[in-house]
Amino acid sequence: MAGAIQPDLDLAASLFDALSSATRRGRGIVRDSYGDGEQAAHDIVRSAAEAAGLEIRVDPIGNLSMTLPGRDRAAPRVIIGSHLDSVPQGGNYDGAAGVVAGVCVLAALQRAGFVPDFDLSVMAIRAEESAWFDVAYLGSAGAFGLLDPACLSIARSDNGSSLEATLRQRGFDPQPLRERRRLLDPARIRAYLELHIEQGPTLVARGLPAAVVSGIRGCKRFRNARCVGEYAHSGAVGRAYRHDAVAATVALLHHMESVWLQQEASGADLVVTAGELLTDPARHGPSKIAGETRFVLDLRSLSDATMETVAAEARAAAARVSAEYRVQIALGATSDSPPAVMDRRLRDRLMALLEHPFEMASGAGHDAAVFTKVGVPSAMIFVRNANGSHNPEEAMSMADFAVGTRALMGLLRDVPL
Amino acid sequence: MAGAIQPDLDLAASLFDALSSATRRGRGIVRDSYGDGEQAAHDIVRSAAEAAGLEIRVDPIGNLSMTLPGRDRAAPRVIIGSHLDSVPQGGNYDGAAGVVAGVCVLAALQRAGFVPDFDLSVMAIRAEESAWFDVAYLGSAGAFGLLDPACLSIARSDNGSSLEATLRQRGFDPQPLRERRRLLDPARIRAYLELHIEQGPTLVARGLPAAVVSGIRGCKRFRNARCVGEYAHSGAVGRAYRHDAVAATVALLHHMESVWLQQEASGADLVVTAGELLTDPARHGPSKIAGETRFVLDLRSLSDATMETVAAEARAAAARVSAEYRVQIALGATSDSPPAVMDRRLRDRLMALLEHPFEMASGAGHDAAVFTKVGVPSAMIFVRNANGSHNPEEAMSMADFAVGTRALMGLLRDVPL
Repeated sequence: MAGAIQPDLDLAASLFDALSSATRRGRGIVRDSYGDGEQAAHDIVRSAAEAAGLEIRVDPIGNLSMTLPGRDRAAPRVIIGSHLDSVPQGGNYDGAAGVVAGVCVLAALQRAGFVPDFDLSVMAIRAEESAWFDVAYLGSAGAFGLLDPACLSIARSDNGSSLEATLRQRGFDPQPLRERRRLLDPARIRAYLELHIEQGPTLVARGLPAAVVSGIRGCKRFRNARCVGEYAHSGAVGRAYRHDAVAATVALLHHMESVWLQQEASGADLVVTAGELLTDPARHGPSKIAGETRFVLDLRSLSDATMETVAAEARAAAARVSAEYRVQIALGATSDSPPAVMDRRLRDRLMALLEHPFEMASGAGHDAAVFTKVGVPSAMIFVRNANGSHNPEEAMSMADFAVGTRALMGLLRDVPL
Repeated sequence: MAGAIQPDLDLAASLFDALSSATRRGRGIVRDSYGDGEQAAHDIVRSAAEAAGLEIRVDPIGNLSMTLPGRDRAAPRVIIGSHLDSVPQGGNYDGAAGVVAGVCVLAALQRAGFVPDFDLSVMAIRAEESAWFDVAYLGSAGAFGLLDPACLSIARSDNGSSLEATLRQRGFDPQPLRERRRLLDPARIRAYLELHIEQGPTLVARGLPAAVVSGIRGCKRFRNARCVGEYAHSGAVGRAYRHDAVAATVALLHHMESVWLQQEASGADLVVTAGELLTDPARHGPSKIAGETRFVLDLRSLSDATMETVAAEARAAAARVSAEYRVQIALGATSDSPPAVMDRRLRDRLMALLEHPFEMASGAGHDAAVFTKVGVPSAMIFVRNANGSHNPEEAMSMADFAVGTRALMGLLRDVPL
């Protein structure tokens, strides 16, 4: 059916241009969640969808649905989604690429007179980054009734206005959030599809335009790890008598790198990061053995079991190293977020649609994780992007966007979802 | 000759008590270099020496000599020395033990009517710690004309008074320092002997009351080492694409520990310390790969060759690790101080005088390093001390002091130096 229809890439290019023009502030993009920047983006996308003849609906908390009606309006629908907010001084593509892809796919199908078996909706989700309110996935988690109502009193970081006041000011209704009321029924959603720029360098390095996302990594983080030894004169205390917090921390982190290598060699998905590591500037010194370090150990994987295994290995190694180096390493509690594995069937179909099929994990979170959590079969397409995301230098080519968007269209068009 | 004479340990005990009473400020000892605290200590020791019949002489920069005249007054003399200043809130024994040991040895010899072949002097050296002026060895280096005259303008850290003004106020003469004039002729010194508390835990751990010092370790320090990588999302960037400054720094420091183990196994004297290690609190984050670390790498050894070898290995490893981890490790320049090896003959004689002979390196610096530098055969005796030094908890027993002091006396008494 409709095999020759192509996504409307001219529309996509004009939308990216309009979004950039309307929301660029200095070097970067500012689409403040529930603020003027995000609203401007919603207005631009909504106008284009209306012009293309899609049905428009805005839910009580501001999520925008643009629908190509299907033959059976009562059948569970497909949602193509992503967000339109950005971080402060972000780039033009993180989030917007997925919404624009959906609109230029549905606009082309509508123009060609294609009528799907069931509704196809593009959902412009509110406040995924939510950098100003510091609660990720406000729009999608809110739509599924998953948010703690206490979030309504969170103050916007710049002007202090509460989330509740901000919603009301924008004309939205905080009541569903207060009642944890579902605005979307997972049983009424056949599948959730999200195209997103890759936020790491993998596709640039591999020379591939797009990839299928295997899943969104969960995180197990030792946020407040600490090693306590004893400060002493670096010259006057031999190895056997030291309680060297730096040497012990180095030994632990070096061991965790070898654990990472072993896990990778056995095919497990894992990243291990110590992004903060500090001796105490108030007490350390160039001719002192360090008596203390503080560090963060961040474990991420598509597999809860892998994270459990590696966290247990970290605790065991901390105990061994503490004994060997005569220090006390306290890794402390972990803060955990679960992995979200993308739907196997959708992944396989997407792989078949790519000229150079490649599958990779997403390290950063996406709305797709929320849809997965409530049981909606979900899939994601990554599009090559240079320079990472969350900065003005995001760089996605329209040619790569076209590859990802054609795969998205293929999934809708050729496959009985 | 005079084999039965013993050090006057009662005098020693009373001197330690008097020093503690006169210079304790709160928990700790404060004998500020060229200040009231150090002067009070000099006054106490000088009075005891005068009472014991020793000859008193104070040089233009305040170093105090207390001499038992020998048969040949023109022959090169032996100096038993150490310092009477302390760090702020230090302990009662660091420095003072060596001066007190000398006085209680010479007082006993004098009382017994013992006349040595050559002069034996105790030298209470000024400002070895020099914590308030931040130039170590002021008294001994000044006496040998080794100080940069620019040090006269260094301001005392608490009251801002220059070293020159401080010397004048105390009745001393800055002119020799300005002219780099020698107040002591190395050729006129037969040997320099210094008893000192151990500043590390070795003798406590080994259950030994005293040790012979093999030498004072030199230091080669990479004071401003830096590793620059790239900040990135900890979840979104795989191992192959990271520029992880923490992982690279850990790899380098872990390698340097293995270098240390190899050097120790081959019998080399070495300590390796990274006492400062910091990611950048302004830029790091719990879910970020660190783009930068700063650290100190401090190498100490009795052997210049060992330090050179290990520093070269550190530079080579930094290059290898930089390539492997795709970062730039810049170790930077080293600040160097040379090792001071104690006189072989004096060490052997001291070893023969100990019931449990044990030889060890000193990691901290001492005036003996200055005497060694100008070519005076020098020896040091370490006395067991708990809790390290430079803090109020220094703990030396009089029994251990007696063991060290008897060895010192034996060296003077029984040996034709």
